[in-house]
Amino acid sequence: MNNLHIEMEIPAELVRERIGKLQSAMQAGQVDVYLVTQNVDIYYLSGSMQNGYLFVPGSGEPTFYVKRSLWRAGQETLLRVQELGSFKQFRATLEGDYPELLGADRAPKIACDLDVLPALTYLKLAELLGAPDRCRLIDGSGMIRTLRMIKSSWEISRIERAALAVSESLEEALGELREGVTELEWMALLEYKLRKRGHIGMMRMRGYNQEIATGMVISGAAAAVPSYFDGPAGGLGLGAASPQSVSTMAVKRNEPILIDIGCCIDGYVIDQTRTAVIGQLSEPLMAAYERSEQLLLDAEQHMIPGAICSQLYIDALAGSESAGLADHFMGFGADRAKFLGHGIGLEIDEWPVLARGFDIPLQEGMVIAVEPKFTFPGFGVVGVENSYLIEREGARALTRTPLGLIVLPY
Amino acid sequence: MNNLHIEMEIPAELVRERIGKLQSAMQAGQVDVYLVTQNVDIYYLSGSMQNGYLFVPGSGEPTFYVKRSLWRAGQETLLRVQELGSFKQFRATLEGDYPELLGADRAPKIACDLDVLPALTYLKLAELLGAPDRCRLIDGSGMIRTLRMIKSSWEISRIERAALAVSESLEEALGELREGVTELEWMALLEYKLRKRGHIGMMRMRGYNQEIATGMVISGAAAAVPSYFDGPAGGLGLGAASPQSVSTMAVKRNEPILIDIGCCIDGYVIDQTRTAVIGQLSEPLMAAYERSEQLLLDAEQHMIPGAICSQLYIDALAGSESAGLADHFMGFGADRAKFLGHGIGLEIDEWPVLARGFDIPLQEGMVIAVEPKFTFPGFGVVGVENSYLIEREGARALTRTPLGLIVLPY
Repeated sequence: MNNLHIEMEIPAELVRERIGKLQSAMQAGQVDVYLVTQNVDIYYLSGSMQNGYLFVPGSGEPTFYVKRSLWRAGQETLLRVQELGSFKQFRATLEGDYPELLGADRAPKIACDLDVLPALTYLKLAELLGAPDRCRLIDGSGMIRTLRMIKSSWEISRIERAALAVSESLEEALGELREGVTELEWMALLEYKLRKRGHIGMMRMRGYNQEIATGMVISGAAAAVPSYFDGPAGGLGLGAASPQSVSTMAVKRNEPILIDIGCCIDGYVIDQTRTAVIGQLSEPLMAAYERSEQLLLDAEQHMIPGAICSQLYIDALAGSESAGLADHFMGFGADRAKFLGHGIGLEIDEWPVLARGFDIPLQEGMVIAVEPKFTFPGFGVVGVENSYLIEREGARALTRTPLGLIVLPY
Repeated sequence: MNNLHIEMEIPAELVRERIGKLQSAMQAGQVDVYLVTQNVDIYYLSGSMQNGYLFVPGSGEPTFYVKRSLWRAGQETLLRVQELGSFKQFRATLEGDYPELLGADRAPKIACDLDVLPALTYLKLAELLGAPDRCRLIDGSGMIRTLRMIKSSWEISRIERAALAVSESLEEALGELREGVTELEWMALLEYKLRKRGHIGMMRMRGYNQEIATGMVISGAAAAVPSYFDGPAGGLGLGAASPQSVSTMAVKRNEPILIDIGCCIDGYVIDQTRTAVIGQLSEPLMAAYERSEQLLLDAEQHMIPGAICSQLYIDALAGSESAGLADHFMGFGADRAKFLGHGIGLEIDEWPVLARGFDIPLQEGMVIAVEPKFTFPGFGVVGVENSYLIEREGARALTRTPLGLIVLPY
């Protein structure tokens, strides 16, 4: 049964490098242990997404305590794997395996991905590990999110494959984008093409209560209907239980069709937006669309290592204000997104964010989706989005679809 | 812009009934407040899935404090909506709105959906609300999950629509299930058909680190490869970053093709499994398949109000043991699922579970997916799954696809 062999995909040196960098960060922050709980973070550090707890000591060898499947985890990662066994015995297991950290007289500082770990599991872990007397449990997610900002070439090649899949799928599907087709029908077609190219069927997102499958395709005014989703466009969606993205309304001529899509291939996502129109856009919408391209190109030029993330947002705000479009930038009224772009990688909402508060410099290896958009209640949303890799010389677009308004005949 | 009107979908009396039942449960448990945070729970209780906190007092009028979109929440629910505003001021806001519960001399018992709320948000909430001195924060998810077990006719009609979509899509797609097509290609086709029928693109799941888009289609031995997923089948998946469900391997003749699929329409999911074969199954697999149908029909007969959930699992275990199939039931070796079925509704992993520990009686209005399956390492997984509504007289299948092994010609 050779065909059922599970191969280790991740290069061994990448796992060693990531664990090493996490341990350096832990030492700098005087953290004794990182107990990783989330599937995505565990995958990042080990190469395996099986279910369990990855125990990373500040120095020395980590152990992946696996609930299920232990056998498969052993195939997927070079890290030491061990059966988790009874959760109640977990502290005793750890004391046995790491006596220098969890022995009787120790009170280690233990970091966890508390931004995603459910509170109930956190409370059980805290009790089990004897917090606050026998250990301190702190949030360490910022450490891993900071590590994950910088992509290796292995990761970039995966993001490039996702970018190619989106570009090819979009090109193929555009032939079917006609007046009268519903948003849902055309999105379904696009998703079908993405899926056949290896899209895993979801795009992972870290934010609580935020959901995304492949993005959105929305025609006209519906795109400007606000939603819970933390982005510049909303959409009527498929009812109150899926209140964003595509609806069953038909695409109409002479209105902007916002095509904000992505996919996830081999774990890595891409995110791109193009605006299409069947016929032509009104003058104000056309002017806003052109401004969005200009803001994208301005950002592209300024995205060199050392540029400050928050400044890129502030510059784009100023650029929309000087065009008289400040009220329409990234949403309208109370419901607007307060960013220009966001990191992408294993998740769609990675760091850095091009937003106030992110006063950190761009670094080589960051991958950022930049999405200047303008929202016009009653008319729709226009804009573009490219994903860029920050290189030494500046930003290189990973997005393959050419820029430019997509004009389709009736 | 009449077409952009957001209609209130949920019947007003259903919201009132659900809030009333939650308040009764709160009073019985001496809980003063339920602060609902999860999108699905908020939708269940209000009819809206906008982002925010739903504050339900033990008696009196709830308030939905909305982060985004306040306007849309106001369209979607009849409950009082109010802007959340600064999170730092949330305690002060609540003191003003509910002085009898959160006034200066009060220390209310506040329930939260701690099984899903991220720990970091929990800790911020606890600090903000002054726990443990000025309030007690407890997990109340069991209360809402218990309420949600019993479906109204409004919910059942939605599950029936999802069941019909799966049945129709499967029937259409079976014509394309041929030797040589890959699992991914055929799954993509099936998903395309589901999506066009209104599938929202994901099936919601409560369990941490558990993921499902539409299920799995797996041919032969790959189905028996274990995965992190808490179900009887695994699958090679699309690599270590999506290590379950479909792979890019081709479907072969004379091996079992496990088709375990669902969709989510208007918020409600369905879950069904059929086994197909191109050609014929070996005698032992055929015998196991027939036993799975027998176990399903046995369960169907015993699923009357009052039957004990755990007993249904124990009976199925006994039924597989008497057929000499105990080692193959619901997985193999260390990696097996320890249930016979599970509740479905807004989420795929609802209560009750037909498993040890669930010593509660079936009640009218429960909807349960029953999925006896047998796993044969090196050969595959065979089995069936129907979703049933518990009625006064017994179980009524909501699943529309007829039972029986699906035999396809070469």
